[in-house]
Amino acid sequence: MGIIVQKFGGSSVANLEKLGYVAEHIITEKKKGNKIVVVVSAQGKTTDKLISEEAEITDSPNEREHDVLVSTGEQITTAKLAMLLNEKKQKALSLAGWQIPIITNSEFTNSRIRYIHNETIEEYLNSGNIVIVAGFQGVDESGNITTFGRGGSDTTAVAIAASLKAERCDIFTDVDGVYTSDPRIVNTVKKLKTISYDEMLEMSSMGAKVLHNRCVEIGKKYNVPIYVKSTFEKNSIGTLVTDKNLEDLVINGVTKDDYISRITLVGLENKIGKTYQLFRVLSRNLINVDVIVQSFGEHITKDIAFTVKMNDLKKTLEVLEKNKKELGFQDVLHSENLSKVSIIGVGIANKPGVAADMFEALYENNINMHMISTSEIKISVLVNSNQADLAVNSIHKKFFGE
Amino acid sequence: MGIIVQKFGGSSVANLEKLGYVAEHIITEKKKGNKIVVVVSAQGKTTDKLISEEAEITDSPNEREHDVLVSTGEQITTAKLAMLLNEKKQKALSLAGWQIPIITNSEFTNSRIRYIHNETIEEYLNSGNIVIVAGFQGVDESGNITTFGRGGSDTTAVAIAASLKAERCDIFTDVDGVYTSDPRIVNTVKKLKTISYDEMLEMSSMGAKVLHNRCVEIGKKYNVPIYVKSTFEKNSIGTLVTDKNLEDLVINGVTKDDYISRITLVGLENKIGKTYQLFRVLSRNLINVDVIVQSFGEHITKDIAFTVKMNDLKKTLEVLEKNKKELGFQDVLHSENLSKVSIIGVGIANKPGVAADMFEALYENNINMHMISTSEIKISVLVNSNQADLAVNSIHKKFFGE
Repeated sequence: MGIIVQKFGGSSVANLEKLGYVAEHIITEKKKGNKIVVVVSAQGKTTDKLISEEAEITDSPNEREHDVLVSTGEQITTAKLAMLLNEKKQKALSLAGWQIPIITNSEFTNSRIRYIHNETIEEYLNSGNIVIVAGFQGVDESGNITTFGRGGSDTTAVAIAASLKAERCDIFTDVDGVYTSDPRIVNTVKKLKTISYDEMLEMSSMGAKVLHNRCVEIGKKYNVPIYVKSTFEKNSIGTLVTDKNLEDLVINGVTKDDYISRITLVGLENKIGKTYQLFRVLSRNLINVDVIVQSFGEHITKDIAFTVKMNDLKKTLEVLEKNKKELGFQDVLHSENLSKVSIIGVGIANKPGVAADMFEALYENNINMHMISTSEIKISVLVNSNQADLAVNSIHKKFFGE
Repeated sequence: MGIIVQKFGGSSVANLEKLGYVAEHIITEKKKGNKIVVVVSAQGKTTDKLISEEAEITDSPNEREHDVLVSTGEQITTAKLAMLLNEKKQKALSLAGWQIPIITNSEFTNSRIRYIHNETIEEYLNSGNIVIVAGFQGVDESGNITTFGRGGSDTTAVAIAASLKAERCDIFTDVDGVYTSDPRIVNTVKKLKTISYDEMLEMSSMGAKVLHNRCVEIGKKYNVPIYVKSTFEKNSIGTLVTDKNLEDLVINGVTKDDYISRITLVGLENKIGKTYQLFRVLSRNLINVDVIVQSFGEHITKDIAFTVKMNDLKKTLEVLEKNKKELGFQDVLHSENLSKVSIIGVGIANKPGVAADMFEALYENNINMHMISTSEIKISVLVNSNQADLAVNSIHKKFFGE
């Protein structure tokens, strides 16, 4: 008798009707003779509502209290779902993060799991219960409530699956799997049967927001098979995220990330430590840098370009200006309204000509590339945002056909 | 430096504006050099809303899960109030029942406190924090969330005050103290400066719903001075509930309890054990009996009369009918639409003529009494409900004047 972990997100549990679908999925797996652990998010807009009430109180909420506040949303869902399953003659009970407990570090609003005690869950499973776990939350070693940041219920689910050595973890969502691109941009998208953890990591960090990155990292580390499935389709097969890509596709997806700005520092002193100093200053000011490209200029200076989110642009320019003397550069240039278009696939490293195919697709459509960056399983280019959808479509067509 | 416990109920914390008043009361006491523990209820109609959502799921909610669900309301208030106090430059933090912990028995929805660990609260108080405690909830020895039933936040507050040996416990509410009667019935009510625990117990069980009975019992047992004050009046002195009545009033209050029915069993066998048997049968069927009066009839039978809430009447009559043979009575009579009017005061036991004064007031207004019952500090009579307000007013006038 295996253990299956099922996770249902906020839109899957938004109201009583939807909780009914959720209950069906649970009971179906239970009837197959499995032990079921269910992880749930807060219902619909519950977390948003709590956060907007918080914003009325203060601009800078105490982070410990923020976690106390928002963790109630998941707790409410667990109790309701347990009651509904009881009503359907199923033994079920709820557990909050601290009741398991899921021990985390003390970084409020964005804590990381240290370890999960299996005893409580196992005891309840062994006495025939469906165990409903509040996602997204844990408790630190001093007994404070902690949360994992948005999307953290995915992390709860996969971490519990890893800890219990579950057969698999099903992530139920409103789409029935992972697609080769965003169907709102490309109308010939294909659903993937499987995708590797690494590709999924690149996909989700690139704007294909199907799975929370940390959950994929944990899945990879402990080799948990993760299925992305639809809550509202019966017999949804979904996409399997696993350690190897079982399909013979060169690339698995084309993604797009908007609202990017590029900053170029011209004439940076070509001295050891200057690059380090630059990114240390930015990180101290909590600015997230994405792509970095360095090109050497004359022998005593160099140019360095990097991207930041557009809403960090103003702050970044201010920080650079303030530290101009210390960092020792001549000038700052910047461009706004850029998008990052990427292709992702383990095939990229082994198949020659992938980059050429991608660039050809862009060339054929007269799309200019402002920056190129490559890795083992990914090639990204910066394009003007008004050409980004065209870029995604032309690349998708090149690799997947019409 | 003393410890003060302040409790604010649901209407006192209903929205951000009202939380502002609450914060003022807290900061005022803090500035006097006191250590402050605050106990809060769920905001406004939060608990009602959760219960109505629960009712959509099931008619018979699992009681463990009910407690998981409704305990979130208080948790939300604690986090918001802590944030608001932080915003006002005060060190403050929230504690849920399980974080203190407040250990209870496992009777879900109506659990009783076993003991309170002081260490966590004391540690936070000693490091200068205002400690905000979620009312109405605790945790049993297996780590399940428990709640105390409606009004349980009063109990939390007084129990914590007792445990920490606080100087006093202030119960903030929307009225500024305890009155000699219900101002909606009597327009010449007077506010009491003090009232004894015993009188308060009789008052609150009689329909003057100012304090939860269990909180008064705990206050009495551990001799905690309890002040009932108004949240929305500055410098409200309120009413002190304490071990002795410091005022020289014969009675302290006139109360009314509606929706009562009287049941009379005629010709009950006058045998030892029959009375016990009768009330055992009723309690096994969860029927709460209030006043009991027994009058002897012929030597082999007796009559016995008692009151139950009107919504228990049908069930009571059914239970009696089903057990008629075993209980051995001849007939059942009943009257509906009765009200119990009572006077309460430690003076009753010592001052002669109090009962006579009460009955005279009723006689002068042509009000018939259907049952009389007396105790050391209370005299109750049953009257027709349509005469109950007149009864309360005439008695109030007799004892307190115009």
